[in-house]
Amino acid sequence: MRDSYTVEPIGHVLCSRSEAEDDDWDNETSEIILDLTRIDEDATAGLKDFSHIEVIYLFDKVRDEKIVSGARHPRGNKDWPSVGILAQRGKNRPNRLGATICELQQVEGKRLVLKGLDAIDGTPVLDVKPVMSGFLPRSEITEPQWAIEIMSGYWN
Amino acid sequence: MRDSYTVEPIGHVLCSRSEAEDDDWDNETSEIILDLTRIDEDATAGLKDFSHIEVIYLFDKVRDEKIVSGARHPRGNKDWPSVGILAQRGKNRPNRLGATICELQQVEGKRLVLKGLDAIDGTPVLDVKPVMSGFLPRSEITEPQWAIEIMSGYWN
Repeated sequence: MRDSYTVEPIGHVLCSRSEAEDDDWDNETSEIILDLTRIDEDATAGLKDFSHIEVIYLFDKVRDEKIVSGARHPRGNKDWPSVGILAQRGKNRPNRLGATICELQQVEGKRLVLKGLDAIDGTPVLDVKPVMSGFLPRSEITEPQWAIEIMSGYWN
Repeated sequence: MRDSYTVEPIGHVLCSRSEAEDDDWDNETSEIILDLTRIDEDATAGLKDFSHIEVIYLFDKVRDEKIVSGARHPRGNKDWPSVGILAQRGKNRPNRLGATICELQQVEGKRLVLKGLDAIDGTPVLDVKPVMSGFLPRSEITEPQWAIEIMSGYWN
């Protein structure tokens, strides 16, 4: 038997975008509303001393039959190479986990105000972590050309 | 009723460290062995074009009663302020998720060889994502002094 684990949202995303779109995420100001039945209000004590947080969330709208376990063209675009699902960041992935670093603009009780969270309204949030410089890459990053092209209009 | 989701490991960590320790993680060379009943071998196609990956994993050794849902001193060290569990990256957290950026040294079939993965032997891996420059912070990072101090011997 395969091992499995249960995760429960600690909160949900509140924002104006209700459908998955590929680009222009910086136009959104998003909030995370923490669920105080799952986490205490002082779970965010000291968080505002960090400029950025990483949000781990779940692409809950992705249906099982859409999950890719092999390779595909990112966004279905044949100008880019067919690469494995672990070599891209698309949502149709095993376990449907998203992880995004965003700017923390405000912390107000159970409410976090963010810029640059690429998750739609209602998305279940599984974790929030502070971005520490010590956890960013410690050596130079290289990436393929398609990874630069795919991000060209992503934030804006 | 609260919503919950099931996640299943796509692989496991193989490394020489079998107990959680706080420091010196760069001394470890770790591997992820993918589970080919959960994911296809071509899931890693093209991954080697990235120098770094982010690994999402589960601190499966943390028992429920150890999970912190409020605030505490990081590592129990009173020299550092008591801050919320969402303002630190310790393992005793709701949903027990870890997320670490590490260097990808080799991809060989179902085997990924890594440097800088701070997870012990046997840790369930839930996701692997390529590190794209477009997903790193796009504005200057600030963090409190304790977050710099706590990382001083972490990698080495």
